[in-house]
Amino acid sequence: MSIFITGVAGFVGTNLAAAMLKRGDKVSGFDNLSLGSARNVEAIRRHGAFDFEVVDLADVDAYRRALRALHARSPVTEVWHLAASSDIAAGVADAGVDLRDTFMTTYNTLLLMKELGIGTIVFASSSAVYGDLGERKLSEDTGPLFPISNYGAMKLASEGVISAALESHLQRAFVFRFPNVAGVPATHGVILDFVRKLRASPGNLDVLGDGSQRKSYLHVDELVDAMLFVRSRARERLGYYNIGADDEGVTVHFIAQQVVQLVAPGARITFGQGSKGWVGDVPKFAYATDKLSKLGWRPTLSSAEAIRKAIGQIAEQERAR
Amino acid sequence: MSIFITGVAGFVGTNLAAAMLKRGDKVSGFDNLSLGSARNVEAIRRHGAFDFEVVDLADVDAYRRALRALHARSPVTEVWHLAASSDIAAGVADAGVDLRDTFMTTYNTLLLMKELGIGTIVFASSSAVYGDLGERKLSEDTGPLFPISNYGAMKLASEGVISAALESHLQRAFVFRFPNVAGVPATHGVILDFVRKLRASPGNLDVLGDGSQRKSYLHVDELVDAMLFVRSRARERLGYYNIGADDEGVTVHFIAQQVVQLVAPGARITFGQGSKGWVGDVPKFAYATDKLSKLGWRPTLSSAEAIRKAIGQIAEQERAR
Repeated sequence: MSIFITGVAGFVGTNLAAAMLKRGDKVSGFDNLSLGSARNVEAIRRHGAFDFEVVDLADVDAYRRALRALHARSPVTEVWHLAASSDIAAGVADAGVDLRDTFMTTYNTLLLMKELGIGTIVFASSSAVYGDLGERKLSEDTGPLFPISNYGAMKLASEGVISAALESHLQRAFVFRFPNVAGVPATHGVILDFVRKLRASPGNLDVLGDGSQRKSYLHVDELVDAMLFVRSRARERLGYYNIGADDEGVTVHFIAQQVVQLVAPGARITFGQGSKGWVGDVPKFAYATDKLSKLGWRPTLSSAEAIRKAIGQIAEQERAR
Repeated sequence: MSIFITGVAGFVGTNLAAAMLKRGDKVSGFDNLSLGSARNVEAIRRHGAFDFEVVDLADVDAYRRALRALHARSPVTEVWHLAASSDIAAGVADAGVDLRDTFMTTYNTLLLMKELGIGTIVFASSSAVYGDLGERKLSEDTGPLFPISNYGAMKLASEGVISAALESHLQRAFVFRFPNVAGVPATHGVILDFVRKLRASPGNLDVLGDGSQRKSYLHVDELVDAMLFVRSRARERLGYYNIGADDEGVTVHFIAQQVVQLVAPGARITFGQGSKGWVGDVPKFAYATDKLSKLGWRPTLSSAEAIRKAIGQIAEQERAR
């Protein structure tokens, strides 16, 4: 297997590439380093030979040149497409962010796969495609799909062009709808935000929203494990799976308390108004993960355990900066 | 009401604008005339004062200049966005067609509505967002949504950015998922294709696919009637409706026979292989239209009657060319 990963220097990409190298795959990847970092690339290199280049995947000409050269050196057998703008709030303020970094990266990836004759894509989609369906447990076949962020819309659009491409040039596709994921190297997200706020002002933690938002979390180690598991076990031509913990999740209130306890014991927590942390934030969601568990995979950590593990790791990461 | 229609010179746009003008609305519209025509615009003008301009909506700068000027002359109160590439097969061969004409036209429309503070959009979506779900009756909440054409993918993407925009700048949205629509002025579609083939060679009709494709059809007069009905009656902030006939539809075989009977009696019909007319063609679909009928609207024509009416009109249109 010679695997090409987009967004390889990001949070999930770093962990995925390391796991693949460890098991002996040939791994290459591009990243524009907007959220990923050279430090992450160094972390990957510790696990084996790794072909890396800084490329902006939204720039189709640059992407084509770089991928052709890579493919000529060492033919790519499948693409894991993780590149996206994970800053959901930025994409609500300016739809161009997700158009470019979340959708056009997918569009360009498919175009180049067609040109180069690469048949298999594994795509990092998101729970954000479901929008806000209130109390409903989200199964893979749940509809309607009305995202409430441009991030969610452009992930949905990406799923759409992938499924359409299966009718023409693509041979096989996996769509993994990620939950909230926690761990290191953290580049964004609520835990990192809280840790940084408390390091800047240890006496007080201001929380966006009233803290009642409740979401399920998965640790990144388990996310990577689940993806590799499904990739090897699923038999469908289009395999689409929710990946997540099958529990009711934890509240932002809980996360804030846990971070305070570890990073700045005694700090006062101040909550804002409303159940949404920001426009485009889905206040509550929980996955039905029957499809994944039927295939034989279950997380070992609950949402609360994943959060606690990640807080320790992120606090350590920030101390080392 | 001052209504702005994108794709106004196309098949549905022409009929919609005429109906709105007839009931006294102020109507304006842009079209790039790729499928629409100046002759269609003249047909609209017979019904009243109509502000029209040739504009490529995929070119955001040109679109912005033209819409700003229009909005300054006569403030737009709502947008009916119909512009799209309706040539599904062309979009399968080249994904850029639907990226540009089906998705970027929506993206640009939303961007300009944000800039100009226009709060309401009515969007012409499509049954193509459902992909190929086999025998299932398609209700509005049916999932999963895995389109099999780039046209379907870019309609789904358009729905996504519209629902996301409702979380920020947009006030209200209607998403109408069109069925197969028949009538005049025909610009594309199976009936027009058959009529033209028979006029070119009256002794024989070659049909793509084995003729078993079965789809429900609505006459364009009824489609326009349904849209105006839902727009005035529905109360949701995001109103999404399948519009179609609640029957099992008709086969391509039936359509071919009807066209032959009217246009070239005695012509031999030759069928191809496979249940799909072309890549990206959904071989069978039928709508559940409970949501629409609960609101109080039902078509008066069955799929078969709509087809027969349209064949007569399209044959007449082609004779007049």
